[in-house]
Amino acid sequence: MFDYKLLSALAAVVEQAGFERAAHVLGLSQSAVSQRIKLLEARIGQPVLVRATPPSPTDIGRRLLNHVQQVRLLERDLQSVVPALDEGGIAERLRIALNADSLATWWAPAVGDFCAEHRLLTDLVVEDQDVGLKRMRAGEVAACLCGSERPVAGARSLLLGAMRYRALASPAFIARHFPHGVTAQALARSPALVFGPDDFLQHRYLASLGVEGGFEHHLCPSSEGFIRMTESGMGWGLVPELQVQEQLASGKLVELLSDRCIDVPLYWHHWRNGGQLLTQLTDHLAKKAGQWLVPLAAQ
Amino acid sequence: MFDYKLLSALAAVVEQAGFERAAHVLGLSQSAVSQRIKLLEARIGQPVLVRATPPSPTDIGRRLLNHVQQVRLLERDLQSVVPALDEGGIAERLRIALNADSLATWWAPAVGDFCAEHRLLTDLVVEDQDVGLKRMRAGEVAACLCGSERPVAGARSLLLGAMRYRALASPAFIARHFPHGVTAQALARSPALVFGPDDFLQHRYLASLGVEGGFEHHLCPSSEGFIRMTESGMGWGLVPELQVQEQLASGKLVELLSDRCIDVPLYWHHWRNGGQLLTQLTDHLAKKAGQWLVPLAAQ
Repeated sequence: MFDYKLLSALAAVVEQAGFERAAHVLGLSQSAVSQRIKLLEARIGQPVLVRATPPSPTDIGRRLLNHVQQVRLLERDLQSVVPALDEGGIAERLRIALNADSLATWWAPAVGDFCAEHRLLTDLVVEDQDVGLKRMRAGEVAACLCGSERPVAGARSLLLGAMRYRALASPAFIARHFPHGVTAQALARSPALVFGPDDFLQHRYLASLGVEGGFEHHLCPSSEGFIRMTESGMGWGLVPELQVQEQLASGKLVELLSDRCIDVPLYWHHWRNGGQLLTQLTDHLAKKAGQWLVPLAAQ
Repeated sequence: MFDYKLLSALAAVVEQAGFERAAHVLGLSQSAVSQRIKLLEARIGQPVLVRATPPSPTDIGRRLLNHVQQVRLLERDLQSVVPALDEGGIAERLRIALNADSLATWWAPAVGDFCAEHRLLTDLVVEDQDVGLKRMRAGEVAACLCGSERPVAGARSLLLGAMRYRALASPAFIARHFPHGVTAQALARSPALVFGPDDFLQHRYLASLGVEGGFEHHLCPSSEGFIRMTESGMGWGLVPELQVQEQLASGKLVELLSDRCIDVPLYWHHWRNGGQLLTQLTDHLAKKAGQWLVPLAAQ
């Protein structure tokens, strides 16, 4: 077995953002915490912490942390069976990778009550889908939300539904760039908004209109920034319908071509043996996500 | 002088997200583009592109790209003096690092008209302040928005104002965690929301109330996700006042302790010789930012 005294010291230093606070929480002296970290590093032969303010885990440190979180989840399951072992209901943490648009829209309303009820704290990591799955494979996250179905070894995936995107722009942008109506060619010549190098929604939209090739675009890796830039007439872009209901109702944003949406599927990937809390969260999402996501049409 | 045929090929492949489209834009065959990239790599002795779909620049590739952008900006200045050289007003790009909360709130309304008028496209990078300045130093961005005043060598900094943050929570969260009123001790025992490891606003707020030490928290590296999680009762957190005016008016979010804000200064760092467009953008920001930011009180 690993030495969990050492691993707990690592977890405390990262979670408390410093040696002093970690010592306080663990009821140890600061030098005792420091000794435990050094011993851990000596055993595994490489550093687990970057000594910055605050200290951050190295790659191997992050894997150890995730392991500690997984073990805590498993312990938690046992505690509900053997209540005498319960130390008073310490909140648990789950590290979860998800896409920015989910976090900006339906994620919190879907899981808020669950987290409060189960005293679950979340470490959220915003990643595009491929990186999210890589983090699953490396054991850095307990679960991830992404667009591809295929789970990594040891994990399961579950289709929660799809996010619906519509191509929108501000009335001023439309007046400036499409005085003679929105045509595919005019669209290809006006500046678009692109979330990042892995965002091909705008390409797909143009391709569906028969336009191939590059186009002028701003890069904006922020879900909320994307909306603000669309509202400010900086470009057109594909935006989650969920996020702009108010702007569509008020006419602040307008659909470029009516009723032409792109649905992006969202799969929930989770470890098969991730403990009861992860299983409960999975069941909860399966039940709730349909309130915000649309059913995925057969493609 | 560098060989700008090679550098333009690199820029086209990255900006067009592929060799085929780059070739199309440059009016070359795909193999000619490929040859130019290989020649560039042979000259500098290391790869400039990661051959993925889409191709992404390596670190050195990114620096070369930024250099190309800077040169284009300088060329643009010259074109306005020597109009005969003008190739028809190609849109220019500026790569800018900024904090997530600015991008989620005032950035786009402040620069939208400027970008449209000057045909400026922006590559935005979301970074916390220290990383933003590192990217300035490495020449990876033309400008950055950050919380510290001191410019890197060759750059200037300009105080634009401050973002005002207030500690907010949902009425349900307040009812659950503070049945006997919001006290510093009760606050320290209820889950907080923290943006990331470099976000110490919540620590500062607790410290201002005399509370030291760690506290339970969710990590949520998304400006919009932060608001959604606050609204969903997952935690309390310091939120930009600009971003939640509607929620404060409707009572969806409530201030924990009345009239206790934290003002975070925002400095605009830009290269001294970044070209006329960057200077114009700087002047524009200096004039406009006060519509959204508050004056920084003497500390």
